[in-house]
Amino acid sequence: MSKKETEIIEEPELPSVKVIPLGGLEQIGMNITAFEYDDSIIVVDCGIAFPEDDMLGIDLVIPDVSYLKDNIDKVKGFFITHGHEDHIGALPYVLKDICVPVYATCLTTALIENKLREHEMPKKVKIKTVKYGQSVNAGDFRVEFIRTNHSIADAAALAIFSPAGVIVHTGDFKVDYTPVYGETIDLPRLAELGKKGVLALMCDSTNVLRPGYTMSEKTVGKTFDTIFMENSDRRIIVATFSTNVDRVQQIINSAEKYGRKVVVEGRSMVNVISTACELGYITVKEGTIIPIEQMKSYKDEKTVLITTGSQGEAMAALSRMAANIHKKVTIKPGDVVIFSSSAIPGNEKNIFKVINELSMIGAKVIFQDAHVSGHACQEEIKLIYSLVKPKYAIPVHGEYRFLTAHKELAVNMGVEKDNVFILSSGDVLELNEEKGVLTDKVKVGAVMVDGLGVGDVGNIVLRDRQQLSESGLIVVSLTFDSATGEVLAGPDISSRGFVYVKEAEELIEALEGEVIATLDLIRSREITDQNKMKSLIRDDLADFLWKRMKRRPIILPVFMEV
Amino acid sequence: MSKKETEIIEEPELPSVKVIPLGGLEQIGMNITAFEYDDSIIVVDCGIAFPEDDMLGIDLVIPDVSYLKDNIDKVKGFFITHGHEDHIGALPYVLKDICVPVYATCLTTALIENKLREHEMPKKVKIKTVKYGQSVNAGDFRVEFIRTNHSIADAAALAIFSPAGVIVHTGDFKVDYTPVYGETIDLPRLAELGKKGVLALMCDSTNVLRPGYTMSEKTVGKTFDTIFMENSDRRIIVATFSTNVDRVQQIINSAEKYGRKVVVEGRSMVNVISTACELGYITVKEGTIIPIEQMKSYKDEKTVLITTGSQGEAMAALSRMAANIHKKVTIKPGDVVIFSSSAIPGNEKNIFKVINELSMIGAKVIFQDAHVSGHACQEEIKLIYSLVKPKYAIPVHGEYRFLTAHKELAVNMGVEKDNVFILSSGDVLELNEEKGVLTDKVKVGAVMVDGLGVGDVGNIVLRDRQQLSESGLIVVSLTFDSATGEVLAGPDISSRGFVYVKEAEELIEALEGEVIATLDLIRSREITDQNKMKSLIRDDLADFLWKRMKRRPIILPVFMEV
Repeated sequence: MSKKETEIIEEPELPSVKVIPLGGLEQIGMNITAFEYDDSIIVVDCGIAFPEDDMLGIDLVIPDVSYLKDNIDKVKGFFITHGHEDHIGALPYVLKDICVPVYATCLTTALIENKLREHEMPKKVKIKTVKYGQSVNAGDFRVEFIRTNHSIADAAALAIFSPAGVIVHTGDFKVDYTPVYGETIDLPRLAELGKKGVLALMCDSTNVLRPGYTMSEKTVGKTFDTIFMENSDRRIIVATFSTNVDRVQQIINSAEKYGRKVVVEGRSMVNVISTACELGYITVKEGTIIPIEQMKSYKDEKTVLITTGSQGEAMAALSRMAANIHKKVTIKPGDVVIFSSSAIPGNEKNIFKVINELSMIGAKVIFQDAHVSGHACQEEIKLIYSLVKPKYAIPVHGEYRFLTAHKELAVNMGVEKDNVFILSSGDVLELNEEKGVLTDKVKVGAVMVDGLGVGDVGNIVLRDRQQLSESGLIVVSLTFDSATGEVLAGPDISSRGFVYVKEAEELIEALEGEVIATLDLIRSREITDQNKMKSLIRDDLADFLWKRMKRRPIILPVFMEV
Repeated sequence: MSKKETEIIEEPELPSVKVIPLGGLEQIGMNITAFEYDDSIIVVDCGIAFPEDDMLGIDLVIPDVSYLKDNIDKVKGFFITHGHEDHIGALPYVLKDICVPVYATCLTTALIENKLREHEMPKKVKIKTVKYGQSVNAGDFRVEFIRTNHSIADAAALAIFSPAGVIVHTGDFKVDYTPVYGETIDLPRLAELGKKGVLALMCDSTNVLRPGYTMSEKTVGKTFDTIFMENSDRRIIVATFSTNVDRVQQIINSAEKYGRKVVVEGRSMVNVISTACELGYITVKEGTIIPIEQMKSYKDEKTVLITTGSQGEAMAALSRMAANIHKKVTIKPGDVVIFSSSAIPGNEKNIFKVINELSMIGAKVIFQDAHVSGHACQEEIKLIYSLVKPKYAIPVHGEYRFLTAHKELAVNMGVEKDNVFILSSGDVLELNEEKGVLTDKVKVGAVMVDGLGVGDVGNIVLRDRQQLSESGLIVVSLTFDSATGEVLAGPDISSRGFVYVKEAEELIEALEGEVIATLDLIRSREITDQNKMKSLIRDDLADFLWKRMKRRPIILPVFMEV
């Protein structure tokens, strides 16, 4: 029997810190967690999620931060672990209501500032750059930034000091002993914290199903060298994530080694690389990078194109090249196209579509060989546990199947089973040296962004879009005499997304006939309530269409009165 | 310089056989190929494809067989390699127009008959069972069925004898030296054919990117034994493909070995297993299989449930269990759920969703360990080439990226580079001992099936569904005086899938205002053509909405006259 269960009725005596995931751990992508002690709240990360398949027409999803709004006076700041969209993407939306300082390392700060500029945010938001090893005081908290390695430079873990104890949040990380830029994750500092006593560890779960270690980013450089050497007579095109600055550095390294000019294409790629170059995260010789317009002045085998589209995104540069609709680049037979990436689940089909198109043109496609993950595998996660030695473990960043596997790993690493918490969005976990208890549930949720609309598309609209996408819509128009209720015009049938109407005259006539029959029925029953009439027409037509065609279009009766 | 290129102008002197893919090799799934010699046409396989992501609302896709209809007098029969949907699924549709005999092995025949019964086909179609080693004469062709191994029992390769030479079509296959049911693929017969001389080989490309050999189906049986042994205190649920009869046999074997009752759930699983049991493809002891209603009478650890849903299909039994909406089975913490399958590209996200749901309930999920592929890897494909020694190679069954890799393999196996043909749908390839030439292109295409409608949904409807799914629709209704053209009622705005209207009164008013302004413009310009008026209203509203919301709903003006 665990302590937790036997003591659950007692009031906590020790001061405790609250951990409140606001983005939903099970909603992959939307990373945002509040930490609360007394009158102080700090927030770690503020990411977006990409829409699920059933969120039709939605561009992105941001967290519902009602809890922060309701406690606005307590909120001291955002602490951002690194510059990926799922950690910074919601800032432009959230800062509009919760205008508190944002703290991050140098590259992360720059990427956030780019983002706020794109959203035309007023300058009043304070974005502060923090160095590794530095701490920020925020109410009752002190937050220290600790160097880690990840697939973007300047990633940080956070040590969150509170009167109730220290919580270590790894952010997204891996252990890279030979990083391309900067140094190895600060294992000694993690060990030091562990020695002094860490209350809780919140550790990245992304690769927890993979045994062993993630390879060093530097190994990809060797792969590039080999590919460049073996294809010295061909043009090389590399698609990768725009934020993977170290990856881009290594492509540039190989290009310079083998005497090629580098062309950068794709909006986000151009943006990130120019920011990274300005800040010194990428070192490139004068003249290596050339504008895309100059590419034609060089022989194919003297150029490398670095581009976006490694996930097969329809609008990205590589996909447009493969579909032969890119304005400036045409893929030629013999081109070597490298996907320096792996498939994020759900993107496989799109990626394979692009690979097929490239193969049809005659390009040679290299997939997955030139990539390593940015996340820690099992042995690296174990290493962190062995150094940090937390009392409580809160697995983060991953689907539920990862979190449960992480729980098992944590238990194997010596954390008591009842001290491992798989939290749901909105759970309030109170922790102190004595116990960890779920004490409350706060309002959370996913706010859908569609175009410029934030939160104006809800479940009813989505359900309609689903039905519209499957079977289209039929509009039944009728004009009535407002005095007598007599039908003056119609029924007229219009449809979209249903059948190709010109070939379906007979069907349209049949539908009109159905409506006329329903109207007769309405008259005979002396129904005059328009909602009842509409509902009868809808039901009758739905029934007719299901029997005849096994389809369920949305049926929209439109009544007018003159 | 190749023979082909230098001789292309000359008329062929030798008689030649035509190979015409009708389903599109690049359209994965829809397997159907015509072979033509003089006045004889035979057709190999007649499959469906599953709709692409952009085919909204489409249930399945069947081939456009116009070419067969136009040459109906020549068509001698369908020859089916095995009973998977992508090889038999279109038969109920195609046989309606092209009523010729269908030839297949025993289990395949039974599955086709089930399918035709479901579609309530009249009995006049002749479905004939052929044994391995037997030949069927069909016009100028003779077709021999040759035993192969695959993930369904009774798979066959075909040797197609024509006056122009022999074509060997492998169907889908692997080389299994220790098959669960029946015998190893008939390698001696393939060698014999090779020795006598084979004109062309059409060989399965599915696993051509994978080095080595595919493991024997029997190895999965050992895995089941281990899992059953290690989980002797838990209920076991196995999801797999309903047609994988050997897989089901092995689950039954392990169940009987470890004293468990077997429950079968899922419509297609129940159908296939009962057919396979009747025909003797599955051996099961009396009393092992129990009705699902009796499951409660046994302890959990004494039952195994075999079910559908291994691809995370939303409506399949396992997905409904995971979502807790299955009527008869509730997943419990501690249940072991085995996905005896791998993910077909595109299904990853759905599968992971089901796994996450199962994990949340507390079930233990085993994914991918209990599965082997049904398709040949590189070394097996090489084996076939080394036995058949074809003059020409036509890689089949796979995406374009597979076919190009297959071409490289064929060349490495000694086929001349210009003798390897990657065909597109509709290509007419004429082959004889002297040369292989693309001589024509026939009409082909994908016919979309939506409910009971076959081919009544085309690209315009799909484009509308796409737009509807992304942004919904706005209906603008107006009633005019037919004599004066005056607006008598409206504009009224209705919408579906656009925004939640109750929260958007101001927006609706603004839209009405826009329409009124456009109507003023129309009046001032004295425009009376209704199509022009509609188009102006559409353009103005679209512009207004894009500027205000960055959205593009379909705008449907509906005009009535009284």
